[in-house]
Amino acid sequence: MRENYIGLNEYSSKLLENAVNELSRLPGIGKRTALRMALFILKEDSLYADNLSKALVTLRNDICFCERCHNISDSDLCEICSNHKRDELTICVVEDTRDVIAIEKTTQFSGVYHVLGGVINPMEGLGPNDLTISHLIKRVAEEQIKEVILALPATVEGDTTNYYIYKMISHLTTKITTIARGVAIGDELQYADEITLGRSIVNRLPFAQTR
Amino acid sequence: MRENYIGLNEYSSKLLENAVNELSRLPGIGKRTALRMALFILKEDSLYADNLSKALVTLRNDICFCERCHNISDSDLCEICSNHKRDELTICVVEDTRDVIAIEKTTQFSGVYHVLGGVINPMEGLGPNDLTISHLIKRVAEEQIKEVILALPATVEGDTTNYYIYKMISHLTTKITTIARGVAIGDELQYADEITLGRSIVNRLPFAQTR
Repeated sequence: MRENYIGLNEYSSKLLENAVNELSRLPGIGKRTALRMALFILKEDSLYADNLSKALVTLRNDICFCERCHNISDSDLCEICSNHKRDELTICVVEDTRDVIAIEKTTQFSGVYHVLGGVINPMEGLGPNDLTISHLIKRVAEEQIKEVILALPATVEGDTTNYYIYKMISHLTTKITTIARGVAIGDELQYADEITLGRSIVNRLPFAQTR
Repeated sequence: MRENYIGLNEYSSKLLENAVNELSRLPGIGKRTALRMALFILKEDSLYADNLSKALVTLRNDICFCERCHNISDSDLCEICSNHKRDELTICVVEDTRDVIAIEKTTQFSGVYHVLGGVINPMEGLGPNDLTISHLIKRVAEEQIKEVILALPATVEGDTTNYYIYKMISHLTTKITTIARGVAIGDELQYADEITLGRSIVNRLPFAQTR
């Protein structure tokens, strides 16, 4: 029947096509998943489509960034920075909001954060001035910070950024630390990569310090 | 530091939390992917959030279903049913819109469709009256259909629905067919499941008929 085929656009509806196109711009979402989402929205009560779009538009238009730590926030000062029970003299430097959420989930840190908004990456044209590093230096200089914890990704770019920050603040604060790298809890040694295993041997701790 | 931990809600922003919650209701989307999507929307121009939400709300509120084939449509008669070049006397019966899209992509079918909106599934409380089967029977009775192609999923529910439809229309039309089941093109025989391979042997074709 090939010769009798009459071409049509892919979706029987322009509205559906438009929704699929917009949804498939989201990261990790292909056309097939986008179609599944669009059909789900069609099956749900129209309240869901309303709530979802309101949530997204409000998020995009009303979001603030904390004046102090640059984390995503609903107001000029984020919940963490405005919480007086947090240790304001210990700053944990992270790449983005997801790292803040991940560290908060551990419930092991009660200091405050500084969100860089990225790491130094010349290949992507990201230099120190595109990040919030100068504000971090100002905070460390003015606020008598006790400790700066560098919690950036263990990549070349993360290490470069660590080193750059270290050079800029080492004369301003007494203690600069980085998070521990090593074999993850629950992992078998034989499956750990060589570099991680190597580092975890070099940076071994007195047994009494571990829990 | 565990004892000094001061609890916070998971996301530093209620707006972000709300967007993540709404996004994670979509099928196949967990909290982590939803967060990634929300942060992507924040990084994009605000025009994207506007376009996406407009597309979703319009989809939900303005979509129609074709009066004739029940496919998703922008108007009372879908593009396929209103295209006079299509063979209106050959109806392909499918479960939902995704099947129409998949068959259209093959460019091997120039007839029209009938979208059931599901298959008979007593476990989920879906009986013949919840589907568009009675309208299909009416179409077959009134429109002098030449052929009805049953293209439902190869599941117990699909087979039940096939049989139900067959019983209801077998006295009304001359030809009722189902799509071929067999070893997929490009597949090795040894990896095909037994039932599929068995059916493809039983339903073998004269060599000259294959291409």
